[in-house]
Amino acid sequence: MTERNLLLLPGDGIGPEAMAEVRKIIAYMNAEKGAGFVTDEGLVGGSAYDAHGAAISEGDMQKALEADAVLFGAVGGPKWDSVPYEVRPEAGLLRLRKDLKLFANLRPAICYPALANASSLKAELVEGLDILIVRELTGGVYFGEPKEIIDLGNGQKRGIDTQVYDTYEIERIAGVAFELARTRNNRVCSMEKRNVMKSGVLWHQVVTETHKRAYSDVQLEHMLADAGGMQLVRAPKQFDVIVTDNLFGDMLSDVAAMLTGSLGMLPSASLGAPDPKTGKRKALYEPVHGSAPDIAGKGIANPIAMIASFAMCLRYSFNMVKEADDLEKAIANVLEKGIRTGDIMAEGCTKVGTAEMGDAILAEF
Amino acid sequence: MTERNLLLLPGDGIGPEAMAEVRKIIAYMNAEKGAGFVTDEGLVGGSAYDAHGAAISEGDMQKALEADAVLFGAVGGPKWDSVPYEVRPEAGLLRLRKDLKLFANLRPAICYPALANASSLKAELVEGLDILIVRELTGGVYFGEPKEIIDLGNGQKRGIDTQVYDTYEIERIAGVAFELARTRNNRVCSMEKRNVMKSGVLWHQVVTETHKRAYSDVQLEHMLADAGGMQLVRAPKQFDVIVTDNLFGDMLSDVAAMLTGSLGMLPSASLGAPDPKTGKRKALYEPVHGSAPDIAGKGIANPIAMIASFAMCLRYSFNMVKEADDLEKAIANVLEKGIRTGDIMAEGCTKVGTAEMGDAILAEF
Ligand SMILES: CC(C)[C@H](C(=O)O)[C@@H](O)C(=O)O
Ligand SMILES: CC(C)[C@H](C(=O)O)[C@@H](O)C(=O)O
Repeated sequence: MTERNLLLLPGDGIGPEAMAEVRKIIAYMNAEKGAGFVTDEGLVGGSAYDAHGAAISEGDMQKALEADAVLFGAVGGPKWDSVPYEVRPEAGLLRLRKDLKLFANLRPAICYPALANASSLKAELVEGLDILIVRELTGGVYFGEPKEIIDLGNGQKRGIDTQVYDTYEIERIAGVAFELARTRNNRVCSMEKRNVMKSGVLWHQVVTETHKRAYSDVQLEHMLADAGGMQLVRAPKQFDVIVTDNLFGDMLSDVAAMLTGSLGMLPSASLGAPDPKTGKRKALYEPVHGSAPDIAGKGIANPIAMIASFAMCLRYSFNMVKEADDLEKAIANVLEKGIRTGDIMAEGCTKVGTAEMGDAILAEF
Repeated sequence: MTERNLLLLPGDGIGPEAMAEVRKIIAYMNAEKGAGFVTDEGLVGGSAYDAHGAAISEGDMQKALEADAVLFGAVGGPKWDSVPYEVRPEAGLLRLRKDLKLFANLRPAICYPALANASSLKAELVEGLDILIVRELTGGVYFGEPKEIIDLGNGQKRGIDTQVYDTYEIERIAGVAFELARTRNNRVCSMEKRNVMKSGVLWHQVVTETHKRAYSDVQLEHMLADAGGMQLVRAPKQFDVIVTDNLFGDMLSDVAAMLTGSLGMLPSASLGAPDPKTGKRKALYEPVHGSAPDIAGKGIANPIAMIASFAMCLRYSFNMVKEADDLEKAIANVLEKGIRTGDIMAEGCTKVGTAEMGDAILAEF
């Protein structure tokens, strides 16, 4: 039997509660379907800082590098708001992305039919919405050097960040977007600010060339990132796959997630390049939502985004397409039945806690 | 009689048509109210490139530096999509902002009551919406150096942009935001990405200190820019004044503008520091919308954003508060009467062209 090695990094806030529901599903798949998942566990974010004084320990980094996939909960909370910049909770996540070379961040923004009314947008604009944002995740202003605060004297300081993109980085993320578009509606919209940024000029050029060279069957459109933000709000269904850089991707995927009315429910996958020998790719799966410290530990958090992240893990890391489909279907069914955690509660529905939601999904699975 | 010197830069696309309606209002104010406006005119964007091979000529830059205020239409269009980067239409606008030192960009996002239904958001979320986005306009990644594309050989290029903020730049824009908040609902929300960017760390720190030192009567909140984008979509009315950097301001103000359903109607003001001797500040006023080349020259463009930009000019450059109020009221009245250009047409309303809309507003003024 193949072993499937998973590292669980529940993190802070509601991370551990949400992860507990995924553990149930893993146990079920091992017991009933011989899935052969072997799980290990580590600390990340504030909880790692409390234990080791770092946002992730070297030991846990090593485990992450060796696992077939990492499941990540959430990091951060007021408790760590004033720890030094280098060891702030987010640093753990950023190091995982960088050291695992997870350059491709896939953020589906889908609107669960049962939740179309929960969107702040008019229901008809989001019903059936199914966008995939492909965000570059290991480059751009997140990691470029210099990145520093200089003391200029006279009470003046200078804060500097550097946006850097090389041809190969743009090529490979564009490739991921085009490949994924082929499995969907075959359309890619690339977003940058080429009217202001040189990295945007290069981005536009490399995406255009990559398209011409290898993906001319896919429909390609370019949009300025600010106009893209507008269009997401105006008519989100016009998009299929959006490809963009690290910082624009951060902003645009949050806006897109909020549009769906399903914010607490959206998963993401961060993928590396396939190993030339084994074809395997490093991967990390995490909910789009944060650690929600205000409701942590109360057993009321919505575990759906975490469970949906595990479904992406089944699909992208283990090629268990049927199981992934089934798990996503189970989530949709539970929502159809009117079972809801507090964040998505609506009239006539049944309010449940984190564990009950997990159980309900498992029962449908 | 005081002379009031205005430079009109209609630019490209629908810019000239929209500016023509402002000219009517200026002529009326001169003739009927002795306003003493003296107007000069110049070229910017694609039209300047066609005439001079530059996105703005030195002569017109000189006029802009000498005017009391600049009224700017819009720039760009497919005709100039492949002109060299240095002379692309946007370069004219960026040079005006930089050389006139217009560091404070004020972008009101208001929802005209008559248009609440035109928003893609549910009407109750935007009815009565009145946000002011204060965007830093002469710093950040727009102007930081290095800003270049380097050839690395091997077919690889590197695109670089640099985000730079100094203490004084953050201090002065925060000051503008706090001052304006005092004339409104006394609340400021500052947005950055301090969890990822060093310039964001400095931004957060300087805004906090500026608040403590001189504006502690104003309520201050901090939000990460990605969360800010989400919150704008979720519950825009929670905000009063938002202060943010050049690039985040570009994205967030476009999202906010789209929320209102009044995109074609929103004005903006870009202001410099007051002259220590005269108290006068350089200023440029422009619609938030672009040059809309697809409808240019047809006489159907909505001139309201341009006219509302002139109202801001009356208010901020000439302290003609009553006239500004009256002009804004005239716009609202015309909308209440159901007079609409095509972009905001709704059932039961009367569809008019650019000139008729201008005339209708003038008649109410
Ligand atoms: C937590 C933070 C560093 C992170 C980011 O900015 O990438 C988050 O906002 C995200 O989108 O995953
Ligand atoms: C035209 C362009 C350079 C400009 C910007 O990016 O600032 C525009 O989007 C704006 O917001 O005024």
